[in-house]
Amino acid sequence: MKLFTVGPVACYPIVLKTMSQQMYSHRSDEYKKIHYDTVDLLKKWLETENSIYLFSSTGTGFMEAAVRNCVKDKLLVCINGDFGKRFAEVGKSNGKQVEILEPALGDPITPQGLDDALKKNPQVEAVAITHNETSVGLINPLRELCLIAKKHGKLIFVDAVSSMGGTEILVDDWGIDICFSSSQKCFGVPPGLGIGSVSKKCLQIAEKMPNRGYYFDLTLWEKDHQRGQGTPVTSVIPQIASLNAVLHMVEEKGGKKWYFDLFNRRNTKIRRAVKKLGTPVYPKRGYESPTVNCIKAPKGVPGKKIYDEMRLKGYELAQGYGALKDVTYRIGNMGYIPSLSLTSMLEALKEVYASI
Amino acid sequence: MKLFTVGPVACYPIVLKTMSQQMYSHRSDEYKKIHYDTVDLLKKWLETENSIYLFSSTGTGFMEAAVRNCVKDKLLVCINGDFGKRFAEVGKSNGKQVEILEPALGDPITPQGLDDALKKNPQVEAVAITHNETSVGLINPLRELCLIAKKHGKLIFVDAVSSMGGTEILVDDWGIDICFSSSQKCFGVPPGLGIGSVSKKCLQIAEKMPNRGYYFDLTLWEKDHQRGQGTPVTSVIPQIASLNAVLHMVEEKGGKKWYFDLFNRRNTKIRRAVKKLGTPVYPKRGYESPTVNCIKAPKGVPGKKIYDEMRLKGYELAQGYGALKDVTYRIGNMGYIPSLSLTSMLEALKEVYASI
Repeated sequence: MKLFTVGPVACYPIVLKTMSQQMYSHRSDEYKKIHYDTVDLLKKWLETENSIYLFSSTGTGFMEAAVRNCVKDKLLVCINGDFGKRFAEVGKSNGKQVEILEPALGDPITPQGLDDALKKNPQVEAVAITHNETSVGLINPLRELCLIAKKHGKLIFVDAVSSMGGTEILVDDWGIDICFSSSQKCFGVPPGLGIGSVSKKCLQIAEKMPNRGYYFDLTLWEKDHQRGQGTPVTSVIPQIASLNAVLHMVEEKGGKKWYFDLFNRRNTKIRRAVKKLGTPVYPKRGYESPTVNCIKAPKGVPGKKIYDEMRLKGYELAQGYGALKDVTYRIGNMGYIPSLSLTSMLEALKEVYASI
Repeated sequence: MKLFTVGPVACYPIVLKTMSQQMYSHRSDEYKKIHYDTVDLLKKWLETENSIYLFSSTGTGFMEAAVRNCVKDKLLVCINGDFGKRFAEVGKSNGKQVEILEPALGDPITPQGLDDALKKNPQVEAVAITHNETSVGLINPLRELCLIAKKHGKLIFVDAVSSMGGTEILVDDWGIDICFSSSQKCFGVPPGLGIGSVSKKCLQIAEKMPNRGYYFDLTLWEKDHQRGQGTPVTSVIPQIASLNAVLHMVEEKGGKKWYFDLFNRRNTKIRRAVKKLGTPVYPKRGYESPTVNCIKAPKGVPGKKIYDEMRLKGYELAQGYGALKDVTYRIGNMGYIPSLSLTSMLEALKEVYASI
């Protein structure tokens, strides 16, 4: 089965090799070397001086960490789909008040919209933004949104689960306080690892925050990060070693710009092909995600039909998600996608369209 | 390097092979099949009808889940070493009052001691017990302790991180409400996966518990478990598939009794050998752990010296931990330990003792 999923995505051969290595202690020198090398490579990638933690959890762990460590009463959550909704849910279930900014499905968060929302809710402490909403295949104008949030003096939490690695994010330049992702998306590593940067400002707030729990207590993560121990709980060694291998692979091939180009080229090819088939992508023009395409299913055909037919041909795409479950299907553009597979997948899709 | 660590431990060949498999979606039929097969095998192993969750976290995630979902105000934590201390810390950092029962280091929790503590603290809602304390190499008389806790009508949380899989635990018969472990211990799988059973009583309490968070919200886990989805966040697929492979391997070789015997045989061999060398294990007689030996270092020799010398010979033991860091070293007895490695490790240890 050739994978065009939205995560877990297909892993690079070097990753699968690394995953099969025999274990060693997470307190050994061998582990510490890999841990801090990975942290350094990620700092360089995100162009940040903030601390980077490698959570023994999925990216969602960073949502819990952000609201529990850094928000006392209230935050604003920008929603473009199901993962924005999840961030709001995480806020509420941790006892915080959540204000919502939610444009029509398929539309981005606009700087003007965010400015208005913050004027209406001056008391929120933080703004949560989904950079790339996989359920809709939409990318938000993150840099511009960060400018607005900073102007209002708010903390910025960015769910970059399906964008980190696939498109540029400049953490320090854009002033992002917590920027997080998961291993099983653009980096093409199996799931189980959360990756995130945390600003000094967040750590200062966390230190005084009551009832911030243990597992995602940012001050514990910072303490162990600083004293050279890596992680306060057992590290997800195979996934961390695999991420390390991918980061080195990208560096050898030409660095992050080379990797971003790869995503753009593949994505343009997919978008053109489905448009030619008469079924364009769902989100508003100019806000199409570079890492996942959410495609309108042909009229009268359930999205799952396309998904099922493609599976029969050996291609695992992704079904529609949430509110768009029935009327769309999705083609992921992350992880290990050899260019021949991409070409043959698009051929197969043409055949499926012709047969239905 | 041959591993006699206390976790992450050496993984079985079938595990390393499974870890290198290409990924697939955690919502695919393939994944669901492996997920529920693993759950069924674990239910059989623990002889329980309780729900079993496969957390995308280490075992410590279940500590956070237990105190946050099931304790309103107060719990009693039994402490035999560093992991009992961690449970107490998790309770406090989640805003609960924590009563402590802590015998002298190396002594077990006794039924009498627990009975007295519960008489003194009738208002605690739950008792947390570390079944096997790796930092001291001690195992508590869990069955007897459960009888006492049940007599007092308390919830029972058992940290079975370094005992589940290595020695018998009968969850339903002993009345354990939450019993949890991690992948990187007795099952010989890499870290990143938490394994735990949760009673209906806990779920009923959780439903009414305010501010229980999202990531470890037991009601969300139960909902997705029941509707056939497995996990509410992305599943740690490689580790789950590997655990599945180990459980099948054990079943083929003779079931859990066969596996427990293996631990006992290896452990007796290690304990006899170090006793013969004049350095017995640390805990009180009768309470020696079957999965990890905490050994007194020779007089005047720091435990780290033994650890370092053994490393030079190609054997990774474990250093002393916490309060016993300097005066002990540890030999793990979990995961993939071929019997030839065990024999040669004990030979090497003899040489190290002779040379210092």
